[in-house]
Amino acid sequence: MDLKAVFEGGTGRRRGTPDSFSENEVRLANRNSGILLESLCDPVTPVGQHYLLIHFDVPALDAATHRLDFAEGFDAPFSIDMAGIRALPRQTRTVTLECAGNGRRGHASRSQSMPWGVEAVGTAEWTGTPLAPLIERARPAAGTVDFVFTGADRGFDDGVEHNFGRSLTPDQLAALDVLLVYEMNGAPLLPQHGAPLRLIVPGWYGMASVKWLSRVDAVQTPYQGFQQVRTYRYRDRAEDPGIPVTEMRVKSLMVPPGLPDWSSRARRVRPGPVQVQGRAWSGGGVPITRVELGWGDTWIDATLTPAETGFAWTGWSCVWPAEPGEYVLRCRATDARGAVQPLDPPWDVAGFGNNATQAVPVLVAEA
Amino acid sequence: MDLKAVFEGGTGRRRGTPDSFSENEVRLANRNSGILLESLCDPVTPVGQHYLLIHFDVPALDAATHRLDFAEGFDAPFSIDMAGIRALPRQTRTVTLECAGNGRRGHASRSQSMPWGVEAVGTAEWTGTPLAPLIERARPAAGTVDFVFTGADRGFDDGVEHNFGRSLTPDQLAALDVLLVYEMNGAPLLPQHGAPLRLIVPGWYGMASVKWLSRVDAVQTPYQGFQQVRTYRYRDRAEDPGIPVTEMRVKSLMVPPGLPDWSSRARRVRPGPVQVQGRAWSGGGVPITRVELGWGDTWIDATLTPAETGFAWTGWSCVWPAEPGEYVLRCRATDARGAVQPLDPPWDVAGFGNNATQAVPVLVAEA
Repeated sequence: MDLKAVFEGGTGRRRGTPDSFSENEVRLANRNSGILLESLCDPVTPVGQHYLLIHFDVPALDAATHRLDFAEGFDAPFSIDMAGIRALPRQTRTVTLECAGNGRRGHASRSQSMPWGVEAVGTAEWTGTPLAPLIERARPAAGTVDFVFTGADRGFDDGVEHNFGRSLTPDQLAALDVLLVYEMNGAPLLPQHGAPLRLIVPGWYGMASVKWLSRVDAVQTPYQGFQQVRTYRYRDRAEDPGIPVTEMRVKSLMVPPGLPDWSSRARRVRPGPVQVQGRAWSGGGVPITRVELGWGDTWIDATLTPAETGFAWTGWSCVWPAEPGEYVLRCRATDARGAVQPLDPPWDVAGFGNNATQAVPVLVAEA
Repeated sequence: MDLKAVFEGGTGRRRGTPDSFSENEVRLANRNSGILLESLCDPVTPVGQHYLLIHFDVPALDAATHRLDFAEGFDAPFSIDMAGIRALPRQTRTVTLECAGNGRRGHASRSQSMPWGVEAVGTAEWTGTPLAPLIERARPAAGTVDFVFTGADRGFDDGVEHNFGRSLTPDQLAALDVLLVYEMNGAPLLPQHGAPLRLIVPGWYGMASVKWLSRVDAVQTPYQGFQQVRTYRYRDRAEDPGIPVTEMRVKSLMVPPGLPDWSSRARRVRPGPVQVQGRAWSGGGVPITRVELGWGDTWIDATLTPAETGFAWTGWSCVWPAEPGEYVLRCRATDARGAVQPLDPPWDVAGFGNNATQAVPVLVAEA
């Protein structure tokens, strides 16, 4: 490994081809973990099964001493500890989060990064306090164009040393109902999920929900942090300035039916009616209006179990009349804005926002 | 994908070459999850960070109705529910488990299976009741040569449909102090760790610690289950009958020092004394007697923090005098039997038992 090149940057991301993944990609896949698809039966993802995308190392933070600083660019800057945050009005919200890179593996020409298949998603009950009143209390200076949220996690990407940081505009903050979170599924936030304090930005891809949150600043010129402008942008070509990745695109997943093969994860099902179930979600709190199950040119409608809130996924189920043969089983969601999942990945040079339908190979055969 | 070939078997495992991994391997890496190496600071692996190797799907078992059957081959067969098991004498033991395939990625000629780097390890406080008194109560028939432990997880491997199953001989059972476990780190076992009931076989690689345990049989001829004879054997060549994989080999890991690079996970450290720490373990309850930290031809001794029990890993730490340059940092453990970790992977056709030293690329440079 050429360490100088790694830490001085400028090498850019290599590209991968189908069925040939690099050791860097596999190392990331071993480190970051996806949901176990069979847990899509559960409306809330079980402890330890929610997806994790960790850019650097999990920082060792002590909840007893950790503080959140409302620092630069405020007329009334202040610092608050976890006891102070816990004393504020408490809210619990069920929110589905998906990694913006989910589906990257499905691109024929793949950017070498975390090679997610479909499993970078999860739903949790997040407990915390709304962020907006704290921002108001700090009184952002006139002319603020971005609020910058900085985590305690630090490392290098493409030669640039930085703490993970993301920004939201005042308009976005007003619209988004962002939560400062310290509990997950009724228990203290686990270290790997951002303990002791993280953001949850409902309806957006996961990169906005900054973990290990340590600092908030208000800035007078658009934030240029690495994770804001160098990545998490939709780009046709590497040299495009790109469009920021924000809301999740409409998507659905199924619990793969039948029995798995160990090494390919393909499925074997016996002929007859097969109950197939899964979850569907979209961004921005937009409800799911339809989910279809498909094989070949046939699509049938699933029955929806409406979500309790606008930001949690929707359950669906239907009966597949499985006849002997080989199939690629798919599910396809539509949201209330009329957005429908495509069959093929929408092009993006870094593989963001791939909401193409899940494709599950199934052999239907007698024992 | 040729589904008939997948489910009829006989295709065998393909082999991989360095820096070219297949989609099947990446799919397994996304699904199975390793420890986050920074948590090696902790004597007990935090919830949700213990490694997971799941052969098929996590079965949905109900603790209220689940039963363990002492079935065939006993003179006094019986069935016991979870309340019955919880009423038995309770023991908590801290045990380190490692996947037998840990390190497979380090082989130059690699069997295409789960491509673990070094992260398939973890330590937990396991609570349950000793297995041996229950076996005695069932009174194994004269001539028993194996006890067979069968999980509720079912699927295909190389065309063979089976429930995950493993066996131990009466002599092994007498020597091993096997625990029937229903709690992990003081909480009910999580579904993905084998809820509601699993084995813990201290000192052995993880394949022996059958999850979702449903049935025990006593047999009069050696058990020929897929997971006992077709895999988890050390073999020079694919056609060897092989030697069963049993106890863990001596091994150590470090918390990689300094800051990571996102895509390569290489490290950048500033010059000066650097505290490096980690954990070391061996199989069969054999204590760790020495850990060294090495770079180039230099090795220095680490200070050991003795483990509380013979089956939990041992902490170690030392100070690395980091001078500007590029390094491969390694750690190397020795156990009380005199076994020492090799620098290069011991050959095995399927990549089992690779206890070669961890190699961490580090750039030491000023900011």
